[in-house]
Amino acid sequence: MKYRIEKDTMGEVKVPADKYWGAQTERSRNNFKIGPSGSMPKEIIYAFAYLKKAAAYANCDLGVLPTEKRDLIAKVCDEILEGKLDDQFPLVIWQTGSGTQSNMNVNEVISKRASILAGHSIDEKSLIHPNDDVNKSQSSNDTYPTALNIAAYKKIIEKTLVGASALQDALDKKAKAYKDIVKIGRTHLQDATPLTLGQEFSGYAMQVCNAIKAIEVTLPHLSQLALGGTAVGTGLNAPKGYDVKVAEYISKFTGIPFITAPNKFEALAANDAVVGTHGALNQLAVALFKIAQDIRMLGSGPRSGIGELHLPENEPGSSIMPGKVNPTQNEALTMVCAQVMGNQTTITFAGANGNYELNVFKPVIAANFLQSAELLGDACISFTEHCVTGIEPNLNRIKELVNNSLMLVTALNTHIGYEKSAQIAKTAHKNGTTLREEAISSGFLTAEEFDKWVKPENMVGNLK
Amino acid sequence: MKYRIEKDTMGEVKVPADKYWGAQTERSRNNFKIGPSGSMPKEIIYAFAYLKKAAAYANCDLGVLPTEKRDLIAKVCDEILEGKLDDQFPLVIWQTGSGTQSNMNVNEVISKRASILAGHSIDEKSLIHPNDDVNKSQSSNDTYPTALNIAAYKKIIEKTLVGASALQDALDKKAKAYKDIVKIGRTHLQDATPLTLGQEFSGYAMQVCNAIKAIEVTLPHLSQLALGGTAVGTGLNAPKGYDVKVAEYISKFTGIPFITAPNKFEALAANDAVVGTHGALNQLAVALFKIAQDIRMLGSGPRSGIGELHLPENEPGSSIMPGKVNPTQNEALTMVCAQVMGNQTTITFAGANGNYELNVFKPVIAANFLQSAELLGDACISFTEHCVTGIEPNLNRIKELVNNSLMLVTALNTHIGYEKSAQIAKTAHKNGTTLREEAISSGFLTAEEFDKWVKPENMVGNLK
Amino acid sequence: MKYRIEKDTMGEVKVPADKYWGAQTERSRNNFKIGPSGSMPKEIIYAFAYLKKAAAYANCDLGVLPTEKRDLIAKVCDEILEGKLDDQFPLVIWQTGSGTQSNMNVNEVISKRASILAGHSIDEKSLIHPNDDVNKSQSSNDTYPTALNIAAYKKIIEKTLVGASALQDALDKKAKAYKDIVKIGRTHLQDATPLTLGQEFSGYAMQVCNAIKAIEVTLPHLSQLALGGTAVGTGLNAPKGYDVKVAEYISKFTGIPFITAPNKFEALAANDAVVGTHGALNQLAVALFKIAQDIRMLGSGPRSGIGELHLPENEPGSSIMPGKVNPTQNEALTMVCAQVMGNQTTITFAGANGNYELNVFKPVIAANFLQSAELLGDACISFTEHCVTGIEPNLNRIKELVNNSLMLVTALNTHIGYEKSAQIAKTAHKNGTTLREEAISSGFLTAEEFDKWVKPENMVGNLK
Amino acid sequence: MKYRIEKDTMGEVKVPADKYWGAQTERSRNNFKIGPSGSMPKEIIYAFAYLKKAAAYANCDLGVLPTEKRDLIAKVCDEILEGKLDDQFPLVIWQTGSGTQSNMNVNEVISKRASILAGHSIDEKSLIHPNDDVNKSQSSNDTYPTALNIAAYKKIIEKTLVGASALQDALDKKAKAYKDIVKIGRTHLQDATPLTLGQEFSGYAMQVCNAIKAIEVTLPHLSQLALGGTAVGTGLNAPKGYDVKVAEYISKFTGIPFITAPNKFEALAANDAVVGTHGALNQLAVALFKIAQDIRMLGSGPRSGIGELHLPENEPGSSIMPGKVNPTQNEALTMVCAQVMGNQTTITFAGANGNYELNVFKPVIAANFLQSAELLGDACISFTEHCVTGIEPNLNRIKELVNNSLMLVTALNTHIGYEKSAQIAKTAHKNGTTLREEAISSGFLTAEEFDKWVKPENMVGNLK
Repeated sequence: MKYRIEKDTMGEVKVPADKYWGAQTERSRNNFKIGPSGSMPKEIIYAFAYLKKAAAYANCDLGVLPTEKRDLIAKVCDEILEGKLDDQFPLVIWQTGSGTQSNMNVNEVISKRASILAGHSIDEKSLIHPNDDVNKSQSSNDTYPTALNIAAYKKIIEKTLVGASALQDALDKKAKAYKDIVKIGRTHLQDATPLTLGQEFSGYAMQVCNAIKAIEVTLPHLSQLALGGTAVGTGLNAPKGYDVKVAEYISKFTGIPFITAPNKFEALAANDAVVGTHGALNQLAVALFKIAQDIRMLGSGPRSGIGELHLPENEPGSSIMPGKVNPTQNEALTMVCAQVMGNQTTITFAGANGNYELNVFKPVIAANFLQSAELLGDACISFTEHCVTGIEPNLNRIKELVNNSLMLVTALNTHIGYEKSAQIAKTAHKNGTTLREEAISSGFLTAEEFDKWVKPENMVGNLK
Repeated sequence: MKYRIEKDTMGEVKVPADKYWGAQTERSRNNFKIGPSGSMPKEIIYAFAYLKKAAAYANCDLGVLPTEKRDLIAKVCDEILEGKLDDQFPLVIWQTGSGTQSNMNVNEVISKRASILAGHSIDEKSLIHPNDDVNKSQSSNDTYPTALNIAAYKKIIEKTLVGASALQDALDKKAKAYKDIVKIGRTHLQDATPLTLGQEFSGYAMQVCNAIKAIEVTLPHLSQLALGGTAVGTGLNAPKGYDVKVAEYISKFTGIPFITAPNKFEALAANDAVVGTHGALNQLAVALFKIAQDIRMLGSGPRSGIGELHLPENEPGSSIMPGKVNPTQNEALTMVCAQVMGNQTTITFAGANGNYELNVFKPVIAANFLQSAELLGDACISFTEHCVTGIEPNLNRIKELVNNSLMLVTALNTHIGYEKSAQIAKTAHKNGTTLREEAISSGFLTAEEFDKWVKPENMVGNLK
Repeated sequence: MKYRIEKDTMGEVKVPADKYWGAQTERSRNNFKIGPSGSMPKEIIYAFAYLKKAAAYANCDLGVLPTEKRDLIAKVCDEILEGKLDDQFPLVIWQTGSGTQSNMNVNEVISKRASILAGHSIDEKSLIHPNDDVNKSQSSNDTYPTALNIAAYKKIIEKTLVGASALQDALDKKAKAYKDIVKIGRTHLQDATPLTLGQEFSGYAMQVCNAIKAIEVTLPHLSQLALGGTAVGTGLNAPKGYDVKVAEYISKFTGIPFITAPNKFEALAANDAVVGTHGALNQLAVALFKIAQDIRMLGSGPRSGIGELHLPENEPGSSIMPGKVNPTQNEALTMVCAQVMGNQTTITFAGANGNYELNVFKPVIAANFLQSAELLGDACISFTEHCVTGIEPNLNRIKELVNNSLMLVTALNTHIGYEKSAQIAKTAHKNGTTLREEAISSGFLTAEEFDKWVKPENMVGNLK
Repeated sequence: MKYRIEKDTMGEVKVPADKYWGAQTERSRNNFKIGPSGSMPKEIIYAFAYLKKAAAYANCDLGVLPTEKRDLIAKVCDEILEGKLDDQFPLVIWQTGSGTQSNMNVNEVISKRASILAGHSIDEKSLIHPNDDVNKSQSSNDTYPTALNIAAYKKIIEKTLVGASALQDALDKKAKAYKDIVKIGRTHLQDATPLTLGQEFSGYAMQVCNAIKAIEVTLPHLSQLALGGTAVGTGLNAPKGYDVKVAEYISKFTGIPFITAPNKFEALAANDAVVGTHGALNQLAVALFKIAQDIRMLGSGPRSGIGELHLPENEPGSSIMPGKVNPTQNEALTMVCAQVMGNQTTITFAGANGNYELNVFKPVIAANFLQSAELLGDACISFTEHCVTGIEPNLNRIKELVNNSLMLVTALNTHIGYEKSAQIAKTAHKNGTTLREEAISSGFLTAEEFDKWVKPENMVGNLK
């Protein structure tokens, strides 16, 4: 393998000859061989690209960076955002807790690549200095949390909310389509009074709707960027007005309403906005787990389960057991939920353990947050497309179960009184017969009366 | 011990002669000997009292309960709220997951006590029926989650937010009082550029402020009451308009803007509002842990720690070690935070595991939520009164540490250049001397220049 | 309310006239009004009683405490263990993280009560000094973790393992009793090949058995006591040989094989033994959740669920819905499991956050551990007695479901080949008919052959 | 892109022309676009290779698979284990919860590759059937948990224990090297009585030692393999004796003492062994967090922190701030610990939510377990090599802090009594002077006496 020599204040380092990164990136590669390489989320790298471009523009506007340097830096940032430099970011999550090394990785790559774009060779000293130019008016301490908020917010709106909304729509459609299908209700897993299948699905849709709202109300806090606080939040070495201006550029480049954080000390020392939004993702996971669990239980069978729903058959069940549809989408979704719940613990622990002017658990917070937000979004889409949309009610089974139910006797209370109703129901339970049979044989009412009074469809609609 | 006989549909049960409860409460006492007795939170019982009174009024307004019964029921509810009947609720958290047995405990006690208030003896059959009157237009399935939301909302506004606001105020005051005290900043626990002690405390205040907002935005969801959904959310057996009316009465009696839930199926089957609000409590715990941890580290010593703050001495330190002030309030607060973080896991797990029309983890959700909300509120008050308010900066120590710091050399960069500045700093580090000494002996600048240029107080205020 | 005056190095404090505690306890009461009073677990107080008695004996043996003082101290310890002084320990969990204040509470109560036993009045200065005598050769730093390990170990063997073993026995009995009941298996909640109900229960019994073993292998670490390490683990101020001797006395008094910790620094600074044992309690919770969940699903119905098991009816179901047996024991147990899982997070967080020579999260660790251990034990007993023991298989339903199942077709593979078998099964699934009907009408085999070859009972026993 | 057509019972599927996998793998790829592709851990694939080879041998020995097929299957398994087929396993964690699709992925790849090795082309129907040959005597239900246990056990012994042992050794060496360095102790972060730096490190070493033991005692359960249970644990379709024999082959091929599980129903329906071992990994994370936290606090500074240790400088600190060594290894390690603690929650949740005969959270359990075990091992090695080994005590600072400490006054108690000692200490604290100064000026003792009596080195060694 070919190397070139790069230097920093500790001396010389061999760097792969064809890579743009410099000494500090290479040192981190060697010092942190923990888990698979390149595990620092790409979304963080891309967010750095937005941020570095915005900083170059703000610095230029404020007279501390020449236009040519701004344009070179911006050009490389665009290349990063196009995915052209993905192989230039080999660092792992498990590095310094400030993410400094990934900030330097970005600085070094932009520096070297900009120099090449300006016509220099990879072996020459770069025209654009990684610290003095690319990192101007910045510190790792304010860039990494800014990149985190950018990446987190983007992922939420591009993945999580897209997926959750699609699922809510699909559930809403089912709620409307099934509004007249009367079925048995179940509480404690036990038979209870009836409701419609549409009502059941309306509860699911409402859960997702509430979770979406819960996520949305956390976004204003997440939109507050640390950038401009520099080393400890005081803004040392950044020009006046820079913090507001750089946030405006980030907002412009991303199309997301980012603003500068009102208090930079909080924005560096804590990552509470991310903790808060993940709390809402956790609520979404809780809701999705319940929904996925219900649907696979309602679809269980085909012969010896509940069997009220047919779930789409996406893969061959066992060739021996025709009709065996494993609720695989539900399983994938519930596994995602379990992951998100654990990520909540990780983020809580990491968020709480900052000290003084800086929380140094930022990369693990970033990785867990982005994983949760992406998996939830992807899994919602997958579950919607490959499960919810294709669900079909098993009308015969639904009807059989609700009609067979003993608690329809409730409808007789107002006609023959509670005592006699109970006597009918108890006899049916004991004899394994139907309510109708025992009602008629009891002599308390006629078959016609029974058929007129005991109508499940009249028991489901009091509220509206 | 003296007993009387109470009956239910399974037969006779011996009940302590002087207790108002009936057969179902007694069965639960005997069947669930899990942990200490009476562990079902009293706040839930009190919330039931509001709810039962409101139900009686709504039922009366809607013509399904006579005025005399309404007034008797309301009278007992008032007694419960005055704490007069606290010994009548012996049931535990670890009962049926719907909380049915506690609902029946409340129904039975109101029934019997109302009858006594009406002049009957404890041994007579009650005038007011526990199910037909006290529980009219209700089911355990909609009353327990309603009681949960009432108790949770009340606790949040009466305890958590009161405590958090007091703490925020105290931190804000310190931030203002300390705005001119320049001190060393620390990142990665290592010396960094300076900031003011006021800036540091402003970050703490902002964290608490953000957590308060995060809690507040969840309250609209928590204000939605399940009541009126009855057994499975359809409202079976409740009169038309009852759900809206009963929420109005609860709102009136509690002074909290409760409304009826727009979707009763969600409100019974899930407890996502409580999950969501606890996510925000978790954010508060994360913030408080960081603040308490920082303050005890800044107060560590007296001789061999950081020692920048004097924390109030509330208890004698060891009689051998004068000046040993253990940061006991911080320890209590951080332990509370650890508890809340675990409760978050419990509530997440419990919230996710509902099935079909009912989540049957309601009591464990209630107990964990109320514990978190109360402990956070109490601990904030205790920490504010016994720690934050009494903090004094150790000005000599603060000055010594900031002046001794090598990174003040940053201020020379713009005068003598980075290279020479670095040389000065490195020499001072190697020799264990001060920057000033080495700067002067370097010949790069004079003592007067050093004193003019190196002023920590000029390094802290760029942002405003 | 009447008071007397007590003093410590900070001055005078008013103490309730009839209480034995002194100034330090009273200060803690006033400074830590967090949650309900007296929340420090009684088991910890009792463990302190064993420990103080053992220390008095060891000190006496080593010549640093006179026999009369030893005997007075021991006498009060016995009174504590008899529960006679329960109202003398008002402190809360949320105090100093070393538990110092509870150690002093015990010291003060023993001191005052001993003096009274010796004939002095409550208002006289005590004969036995709380620090110099009761706390001799001890520090809060080694007594509290010792009390924690004593209380934890006792609770595990007296509650958790007793409960878990009873449950294992009950499940084993069911496994044997049901060994010939062939039923349908279910994977992914979907119909699968058959097994016996006894095999299913044998899996449950094995899970509990494994969890018991998992707990037991952690006990040797838990048996190591910190006592003798005093302030920071060096044993300063404790006589030589004291650590071994005091552990012997504790072992003698408790009947548990406690030994002195081989490294006192670890034993003060960390509570990893407790973290480790709780990890095993968490495994038990995982197992119990699965078992309780399965059993309530198998018992669901009575008409519209799985219905393979009858669970005991412990409380009246709704008077309207005869036969509605809510699986309330399962619900209580699963709620306990959710609590334990959250406690695991709390203990993990608290265990990790010790600093230097002392972990100061000891009381919250103690409270969570003891809650888990007790609830698991109680809930196992309750679940065993009120659910498992009374379970009855619903033989008709079990037979109906297994015979109706399409995957019995597997048995035909070796006779008519996979292709023809699959054709039969698919047709039956499509037509909603039985395998037998379609097999016969297919012409591939006769009714006699079908009845001879398709025997679920031949499909369940390959392994033994 | 070029495709070939593969078929299964649902019809035709286009598969990339150059890939060995078949229809079922391709369907899974299309149906589960959740997160990055290929996320199913490679360790699971390799474990499947051991398992498939062992199954082929066991089947051959028992006469149900011809030798030629056995050898072809074994050859492909060896190729997989050499990493030659890594690009043939594109599936994700978030698939069916039984891992069936990854089992089929392995079956399909072995089938096709074996056929090619036998001289056939990729487009021909394979000689070796994925189900009938490669999957013979197996089911996804018993292979996936077997692969999980193999991968988990291997990772523990090859990564986790190797890393933890290296760290324990390094800490032990430091404990010995530093046995005579007397330093101040700290409890509650506050100055306390002295101990040696060696004693402090001995506590760390003991924590790691205990965690290693805690992991080891869980391994016997983890060594029990589900294989042989087939579909639901009954062993249907597997020859007699197969379960024992296949475990022997797996043991032989891996060099790990695997045995067949005594109860196959437990081994399919639960993953409690993995839950249990992860509980021990969680204990290790708790220990490592404490150690890493302590060491970075002891190394904090260089001027304004504790500064008792010099940590190795692995990367340039800021070029402005010479001497700034960020404790980056400690930060990486503590982030890993936070990840493991969250994975504990995920595994707990996933482990608890199995139903009936199968836990369908297996892939998420696998991914989280393997991540924890690998990260802990890697991070221990990294921390050992790049931090612990290179630590140097700052002897001057250590001496200054211990000598300056007021609690050395404890040593005077036995000479001049507690009261006078306290008076000296209090005066020194008030005046900011040294104990020695105030002792001499008090007149209670001479300078010579002070120097003779107050020797920190005599206060650290009582226990041995």
